[in-house]
Amino acid sequence: MTTTTPRSLVGADVPAQAPPSTPEPAMTTSETVAALRASLGGRWAHVRERAREEFDADALLPDPSLTLEEQRARVAEQMQMLAASDHARGGFPVSAGGTNDVGASVTAFEMLGHTDLSLLVKAGVHWGLFGGAVTNLGTERHHREYLPRIISLELPGCFAMTETGHGSDVQSIGTTATYDPDTDEFVINTPDVASRKDYIGGAARDARMAVVFAQLVTDGADEPQHHGVHGLLVPLRDERGATLLGVTAEDCGPKMGLNGVDNGRLSFDHVRVPRTSLLNRYGDVDERGTYTSPIDNPNRRFFTMLGTLVRGRISVAGGAGAATRTALAIALRYAERRTQFAAPGSDAEVTLLDYRTHQRRLLPALATSYALAYAQNDLVAMMHDVQTAEKVDEVAQRELEALAAGVKVLATWHATRTIQECREACGGAGYLAENRLPALKADTDVFTTFEGDNTVLLQLVAKGLLTSYRDAFGDLTSFGTMRFVARQVAATVAERTSARTLAMRLVDAAPRRRDDEVDLLDRPVQLRLLADREQHVLEGLARRMRAAARPGADPFDVFNGAQDHVLEAARAHVERVVAESFVAAVERCTEPGAKALLAQLCTLHVLHGIERDRAWYIEHGRLTPARSKSVTGLVNAACEQLRPHAAQLVDGFGIPDSWLGAPIAVRPCPPSPP
Amino acid sequence: MTTTTPRSLVGADVPAQAPPSTPEPAMTTSETVAALRASLGGRWAHVRERAREEFDADALLPDPSLTLEEQRARVAEQMQMLAASDHARGGFPVSAGGTNDVGASVTAFEMLGHTDLSLLVKAGVHWGLFGGAVTNLGTERHHREYLPRIISLELPGCFAMTETGHGSDVQSIGTTATYDPDTDEFVINTPDVASRKDYIGGAARDARMAVVFAQLVTDGADEPQHHGVHGLLVPLRDERGATLLGVTAEDCGPKMGLNGVDNGRLSFDHVRVPRTSLLNRYGDVDERGTYTSPIDNPNRRFFTMLGTLVRGRISVAGGAGAATRTALAIALRYAERRTQFAAPGSDAEVTLLDYRTHQRRLLPALATSYALAYAQNDLVAMMHDVQTAEKVDEVAQRELEALAAGVKVLATWHATRTIQECREACGGAGYLAENRLPALKADTDVFTTFEGDNTVLLQLVAKGLLTSYRDAFGDLTSFGTMRFVARQVAATVAERTSARTLAMRLVDAAPRRRDDEVDLLDRPVQLRLLADREQHVLEGLARRMRAAARPGADPFDVFNGAQDHVLEAARAHVERVVAESFVAAVERCTEPGAKALLAQLCTLHVLHGIERDRAWYIEHGRLTPARSKSVTGLVNAACEQLRPHAAQLVDGFGIPDSWLGAPIAVRPCPPSPP
Repeated sequence: MTTTTPRSLVGADVPAQAPPSTPEPAMTTSETVAALRASLGGRWAHVRERAREEFDADALLPDPSLTLEEQRARVAEQMQMLAASDHARGGFPVSAGGTNDVGASVTAFEMLGHTDLSLLVKAGVHWGLFGGAVTNLGTERHHREYLPRIISLELPGCFAMTETGHGSDVQSIGTTATYDPDTDEFVINTPDVASRKDYIGGAARDARMAVVFAQLVTDGADEPQHHGVHGLLVPLRDERGATLLGVTAEDCGPKMGLNGVDNGRLSFDHVRVPRTSLLNRYGDVDERGTYTSPIDNPNRRFFTMLGTLVRGRISVAGGAGAATRTALAIALRYAERRTQFAAPGSDAEVTLLDYRTHQRRLLPALATSYALAYAQNDLVAMMHDVQTAEKVDEVAQRELEALAAGVKVLATWHATRTIQECREACGGAGYLAENRLPALKADTDVFTTFEGDNTVLLQLVAKGLLTSYRDAFGDLTSFGTMRFVARQVAATVAERTSARTLAMRLVDAAPRRRDDEVDLLDRPVQLRLLADREQHVLEGLARRMRAAARPGADPFDVFNGAQDHVLEAARAHVERVVAESFVAAVERCTEPGAKALLAQLCTLHVLHGIERDRAWYIEHGRLTPARSKSVTGLVNAACEQLRPHAAQLVDGFGIPDSWLGAPIAVRPCPPSPP
Repeated sequence: MTTTTPRSLVGADVPAQAPPSTPEPAMTTSETVAALRASLGGRWAHVRERAREEFDADALLPDPSLTLEEQRARVAEQMQMLAASDHARGGFPVSAGGTNDVGASVTAFEMLGHTDLSLLVKAGVHWGLFGGAVTNLGTERHHREYLPRIISLELPGCFAMTETGHGSDVQSIGTTATYDPDTDEFVINTPDVASRKDYIGGAARDARMAVVFAQLVTDGADEPQHHGVHGLLVPLRDERGATLLGVTAEDCGPKMGLNGVDNGRLSFDHVRVPRTSLLNRYGDVDERGTYTSPIDNPNRRFFTMLGTLVRGRISVAGGAGAATRTALAIALRYAERRTQFAAPGSDAEVTLLDYRTHQRRLLPALATSYALAYAQNDLVAMMHDVQTAEKVDEVAQRELEALAAGVKVLATWHATRTIQECREACGGAGYLAENRLPALKADTDVFTTFEGDNTVLLQLVAKGLLTSYRDAFGDLTSFGTMRFVARQVAATVAERTSARTLAMRLVDAAPRRRDDEVDLLDRPVQLRLLADREQHVLEGLARRMRAAARPGADPFDVFNGAQDHVLEAARAHVERVVAESFVAAVERCTEPGAKALLAQLCTLHVLHGIERDRAWYIEHGRLTPARSKSVTGLVNAACEQLRPHAAQLVDGFGIPDSWLGAPIAVRPCPPSPP
């Protein structure tokens, strides 16, 4: 797996031949199920197996009968259980008692997504965001002093970035950290309500320390000098849980979901912390108040700091994927058992999953869940390689950030929509808390918002596509890049599309045919449709952006007028990348039954996306109206062919029965052998 | 308003001229807002005004901090408050102390949709379903004995139809009511777990009596005689709330939402009730055990009984509409005040609603909410006229049932999607319970399921379109109509499309033009696109259904293969009907500012639907690819033009500020005069 292949999660080490045309899957066997599970398991399959053995459903599944305070207490207990195991160590450096197995850490986190999602988020906040910030933004002195107590949960922490007035626009936060040379301290202050830290997980009850992001200010010769956003360690509570002087912690109260997480609001009234509290890897202040940084450009410094937090986005995408697979497993198990209405001329009632409508509701979502799981595995592997490499590869890091943002967007929106569909597909049973779908829906709902609002993230992805990182790095503020970008676009697009991947080679290998000869079941044809769409939408966007460079053009108007185009370009890009991950996974699979099933599932995933976007394909001459009409029939046929294998495909997820925790998810037939 | 115009909610008393082309709305004034409110108010605007004066937000809005039991207790108190007012009387006959103002009753219920939705559902179950069943399925003896105590809430009741094994397929329920001539009693029995009454609102705690739907059985000469599903009054609890002998009531426990409603499961172990407990309007048993019915055909009898419950579906659609408007009011108020990111070259941050993406998320949904509100008003008026007419008009009743099903489907799916979008559009603030969107989302989620699962209801709508009611009446079971239908289809389609409405006349008035001359902003052109789509999809479906009449064809395969086509036909039909309601409302409006705004909003509603379905329009030669591409630009332009008027359009909903109950919904500017 190379980490430098631009704009793709798929490495170059995959054979270039076109895959055989998709055969209809035969009877599935236990070997097939095992092969599916291994295929989805990825590079850290052993971590998944360990979680399957160790996670105890009774202790870790949500209990819908608890009050808010009881939920918080239960999750706090679950955190202690996790701390007692060593699942958290992977994310930390060896020097601090960790194992630096980043991929294992994120994979273990993903497996937590099958348990109470409050636990997932609580663990993510403490070890991932708080511990990650100390690891990546701090230096040796912070690692030595804090990481062991963070790993052991002796020092529960939180991550205080978002403010009431500033969520997406972190660069504009209002909290200040002003250096006072007289006492060698920073003074942390919340100047107004808009600058109050808000929605901070752990702040209402449990966190004893926060990484507070603040505008760093030092004395200058004439006037204060502003150095931009930096993180500082600020104690919040004493050992008995009482807030410290100058710190005000409010409770955000009940939320739609994740009520085991104690979100709160933090205000600081001139709270003093030692100068050494500054997480000083990318910016430091000496005793005399002189600011230094290894990165001169303030914007570049800001985005470098934010970039170290990429693990959070990847972890959210992983958790969303696990929750979605749980929901699908519940809804598909129910759909295999539940009957309703007798078929004409028969007394036997029809099984829900035999209805086309029901297949349509659940099977394309199943296919896309496989696709996203493979993309997630590729992303985690890429992250592991980038973050454990001896030398920092900035280009690879930017690549990783962009793909992490894109996959997070697709995975979390897929979760929201799919879990909703599962709830509806289970009717009244799906509405009962005991059947788990309500908690899955409510708990994951904010995944599209936190760790970067999806709409904002898609714009980041698109900007990344329109510019080469190195050159644009100095000016990545929200709209500022536009003029600059416009001048560069032509060259960048050409460079981007020169990327060599399995998929692109498959695409190139496919002879261009007249539409009436196009076989939509042919993999290279499918991939070319996706790649064509990506390229065309991006080039069109680039042309529009050039208008921003014209004299007299209002940059905001140009940006705003193209905003839907921007989102479409980002989405087309990420969808192509995800499909390539699926194609590569099919190629890697060697067990014939699983390979055939995965090939069919991949076709369903791709064609369902083409069906959704088919207006675009006709409007842009990629499909004739007649060919477009045929896509629906092909999707229906793929659903029908996969329907007999739905139970095995669910088993391929490898979710232990006890983890489903829903009475309606009882197996319809004897379990397949392990 | 005529009730006999087939397949349309719009009467024939609207002028036939084409409306003027849409002018861009000017500054809105308080007159405009008042006119919008009057326009949306409809025929029972006075009922809305009374609710605005009388409903007390402190008492009726949900409190997210309560436990499940506290929520139930609070809603029970709220029920007493409603009973003390006379809002419930409208739904009952004058002879029983009601006012028989059906429209007023359903409108008052809709207004409850702005309060705690548990109260809406609890009131709907007791007065609407329980009281409605006694009123419509019972006779004088039941009215005299029970209705006064039902109106006053002295006798809290529930509606026990759905069973664990049978939700959508009511005709297959398993509970039995067997007549015992020796004691002149019915024996109510639950033979197995699948026949347990399930999800029954009120059954877990409060209901003292149930209308139990059961298979009616009498002794025959040789073997028992089965008369199909009938309703009987069965006491559940004594005055202290203890369940009676033979009755088992279980608690469904916590749900996704509506936790103020005590849903439960009921089992009956040979529970005996007097013969007179049978609600005997459509079927009776005399002392000797002889069954009689005014309706000979058992299927027709069944659907006639179900048909009297149409008010429930219409009420759910109304409640969904109110909840959706509340959510949009909250999200739009926030979007008018919240800023994020500075525009390039400026220090001023951009207001969320100035972003195109944000307009796209909320303004088409606002337009569709207006459309559905007008369709709902037309539907309520039609129901009022049908149900208060001196003579039963069976054709009009079937019309009403079909349109009620269709509007319920569109309104409840619109609620689910729109409230979800509002939650996401408010970011982290939208996830906090205090901002109300979580409860709105969770409480309305089951609206797509109860009172008829939406997918099943759409199939009913489509079947209604494919057959004339009178002839098909004997055979409306799930799939049975198919062969029959297929033979009739050609004639029926021709008959259906002969319906004359404002919209059709507008459509006919529009000269058929070449695509490059088609003006998509022209109202007749818009309506013709919708009507063309409806007709074409329906005719295509009819052709497919004919295959079912071929010898050797498997009816289930034919049905199942066409199921997505069936859903599309129903949707195309209802969408055309809803658009016509909107067009007629624009025509009726006389205040120039409001008329211009509504015209623009109607265009946005229609074009947004055409944009969504534009693949179909190209595939079927209704739009060229070039014209189709232009639709997106027109939708964007309509959003931009409406954006300055968004606050006034929200004010047009007429939701008192105190009813929003969300801190983020504070007005961004001084309130417009009342």
